Amino acid sequence: MQSPSPTADNESRPWKMLAELTSQGDRGNLEDYLDRLPTAEQSLALDRLDDEQRSAVLQLLDAQYAAELVARLPGFQAVDIIEELSPELAASILGELASDEQADLIGELNDQDAEAILQRMDPRTAASTRRLSEYDDHVAGGLMVTEFLRYPLNWNAQQVIDDLAVHADQYRDYDVQYAYLIDNAARLKGVLRMRDLLLSSRVDPVADNMIADPLSVRDNASMEELFEMFDRHHFFGVPVVDADGVLVGVVHRAAVEEARVEQNDSDYLKTQGIVGGEEVRSMPLIVRSRRRLAWLSVNILLNILAASVIALYQDTLQSVIALAVFLPIISDMSGCSGNQAVAVTLRELSMGLVREHEYIRVWMKELGVGISNGIALGLLFAAVAWIWQGNGYLGLVVGLALALNTIVAVSIGGLVPLVLKRFKVDPAIASGPLLTTVTDMCGFFFVLSIASLMLDLLV
Amino acid sequence: MQSPSPTADNESRPWKMLAELTSQGDRGNLEDYLDRLPTAEQSLALDRLDDEQRSAVLQLLDAQYAAELVARLPGFQAVDIIEELSPELAASILGELASDEQADLIGELNDQDAEAILQRMDPRTAASTRRLSEYDDHVAGGLMVTEFLRYPLNWNAQQVIDDLAVHADQYRDYDVQYAYLIDNAARLKGVLRMRDLLLSSRVDPVADNMIADPLSVRDNASMEELFEMFDRHHFFGVPVVDADGVLVGVVHRAAVEEARVEQNDSDYLKTQGIVGGEEVRSMPLIVRSRRRLAWLSVNILLNILAASVIALYQDTLQSVIALAVFLPIISDMSGCSGNQAVAVTLRELSMGLVREHEYIRVWMKELGVGISNGIALGLLFAAVAWIWQGNGYLGLVVGLALALNTIVAVSIGGLVPLVLKRFKVDPAIASGPLLTTVTDMCGFFFVLSIASLMLDLLV
Repeated sequence: MQSPSPTADNESRPWKMLAELTSQGDRGNLEDYLDRLPTAEQSLALDRLDDEQRSAVLQLLDAQYAAELVARLPGFQAVDIIEELSPELAASILGELASDEQADLIGELNDQDAEAILQRMDPRTAASTRRLSEYDDHVAGGLMVTEFLRYPLNWNAQQVIDDLAVHADQYRDYDVQYAYLIDNAARLKGVLRMRDLLLSSRVDPVADNMIADPLSVRDNASMEELFEMFDRHHFFGVPVVDADGVLVGVVHRAAVEEARVEQNDSDYLKTQGIVGGEEVRSMPLIVRSRRRLAWLSVNILLNILAASVIALYQDTLQSVIALAVFLPIISDMSGCSGNQAVAVTLRELSMGLVREHEYIRVWMKELGVGISNGIALGLLFAAVAWIWQGNGYLGLVVGLALALNTIVAVSIGGLVPLVLKRFKVDPAIASGPLLTTVTDMCGFFFVLSIASLMLDLLV
Repeated sequence: MQSPSPTADNESRPWKMLAELTSQGDRGNLEDYLDRLPTAEQSLALDRLDDEQRSAVLQLLDAQYAAELVARLPGFQAVDIIEELSPELAASILGELASDEQADLIGELNDQDAEAILQRMDPRTAASTRRLSEYDDHVAGGLMVTEFLRYPLNWNAQQVIDDLAVHADQYRDYDVQYAYLIDNAARLKGVLRMRDLLLSSRVDPVADNMIADPLSVRDNASMEELFEMFDRHHFFGVPVVDADGVLVGVVHRAAVEEARVEQNDSDYLKTQGIVGGEEVRSMPLIVRSRRRLAWLSVNILLNILAASVIALYQDTLQSVIALAVFLPIISDMSGCSGNQAVAVTLRELSMGLVREHEYIRVWMKELGVGISNGIALGLLFAAVAWIWQGNGYLGLVVGLALALNTIVAVSIGGLVPLVLKRFKVDPAIASGPLLTTVTDMCGFFFVLSIASLMLDLLV
């Protein structure tokens, strides 16, 4: 409260407040304050503290409370925070997280940090976390939780009900719509709906009321298979089995949707040239700068390659210097038109509305838009150039060049992501640079070669 | 099977197969075929049929089957399909959908089509759909379902269990983890967990085992409030109440995550210049072309405005024609650097990691990256220009210009989305064009004014 400005007081700077409450050392006050802070503000506040302050906050909180806080943060932020903590503190917080969150965090840490934390965890939990963290993030095993109800096939209803009563506390956060029934080898044999259990007689074997041979997915099932499963069925969760049919976890619908959000976010950043698909401004300058520069330095070389076309026509340009005004416009506009087509293909690919080999269909569909928009933009551009420079032939040259290049850019734009995917290059990061290099080269060539042919009329 | 090519047979063209099976008129065969087709292929196949064929397919299917098929399709595709159907057929299919899906579709249709369909639906369902479709898509009311368990507060456990048994079929797809307890005025008073019901005595009033004063959201709660609620709590669903506290629906976690996916998809397409945030290639050419052109024609005018800076320096350019080669490169590179910063701000905004008024913080954070990348790119560019054109001073001019303009582009790029948001302009669609106009103008100015000052050394 040192500054008179209202935006500078602690109310609007929750990180100051967090640091202050932590230095006072009263856990209750700190937790009360955090309780009143919306999640995004909690994330923002932790983001703005330095490493030491952040460790102090988490150290002061109850481990259970700290775990719930960490679980609400975006994945990369949670990883950053856990990394900085002492292995003891990290282990006690991780111990309170759900199994899929434990595994995600451990999987993202470097091996040494991960090992240091695992050795300080409860051995059984550590073993389970180790197993889960070996799964790729984008398969069923990487999205599943191990907190679910599992009973032997030969139990009766009363035994299940007794277990529910005894472990009520442990099952608090479980999805208890379904209990999974397993044989002696832990293989999934059936699903028992809580409602059917409720309606059954207490002495009935649960197997009498189960859904036998339930649907399940393999632990290595891909995101596409999971989307397919949840698109087809109204399930809130699906059991996951390993190669031997052993029940190893449950994937919830919400986890699959969340993974989709993260995937799309990362792809968006890649299309805009953020290598690695992740950047927030609390990352170190050197990391942010390097990731962006990696993409920019490839881009500048491609740009120089494209502009070398201009150098071939310096005589024409010298004669009609007005052309120099129009070159960057043609370059930029073709890039824009082409990127629209790239975006639609990337989107259709992610929705399954186009297949990788459908070059002809995409090309035909884009050709129509390219011709129609090429004519419209070409006419507009020709008219502006004519009026501006007072030379109808100049208008004709640049209008025609833009029209032709729009057609090229739009048709190529639709195809670039398909071709890159075929060659196993990530289309999100590479489509833009590849597209603009080709369209720049073509655009410069169209303007300058047409102008060379009509040179007598232009000067 | 007319073509010898393996990619041309009906196996790889499911739309041909659909059309053929439909023309044969055997419902069983058609449903069997669809059952074997993955969801994305169903969507693709329907997408590729013409209006008449599509209507014939849905007409032949059982209404329940058709409804499940429509529910699996992306939202816009489902709307397109329903629009083309006769109101009778549309009403019979809609009648089989879940309440939130009915309302979404009706809400997207034009009023006349919607009315024609509603009048042919069961009057009670129609009234409920009408009410739900009045909610905005992005508030709790627009995401909630009305299929949930609701019991009077004064019932006992046995009454609830009897009801579950009687209506087992109706409740098949419900989330039955929770039942909601209401008073005489239908106001939400408590939540009964199925597990607690299971463990209670049959003669206990349900009120004895309920969670009293449960958390709920208002029907007009925003997406942000819903994210907050689900981030904070492990609920699979949250009850929705109106202004009087009357229980009107339940929002599921998965529905909120799905809405987030759609929102992000649409924002991505907007950043790439697809007005309206939606395009698939099965849309009519005229619609696709017009939406893209709307953005391109604004862009071309902004481009011409930016390039007019070049026209002011035609004499300089005439003297040092080699500069014309470097202008498009500086324009493109600054656009790329600036767009990286735009992307990070848009992402931080959507995650709540930056607040709208934090201009200083964002500017400082970007300035660092701008200076560091500006120096790197400037040096690289100067060296290439020097070697290529054999003129060290030319290298100095373009390298310095690129360095300065990278700093400008990166710092502006970070701020543009914040400023646009402040003025209530959608930052996804407007940030790119605004950024590149400013950076182009500055870039051309830097190159050409520095070159003018050093003209004696360049020629």
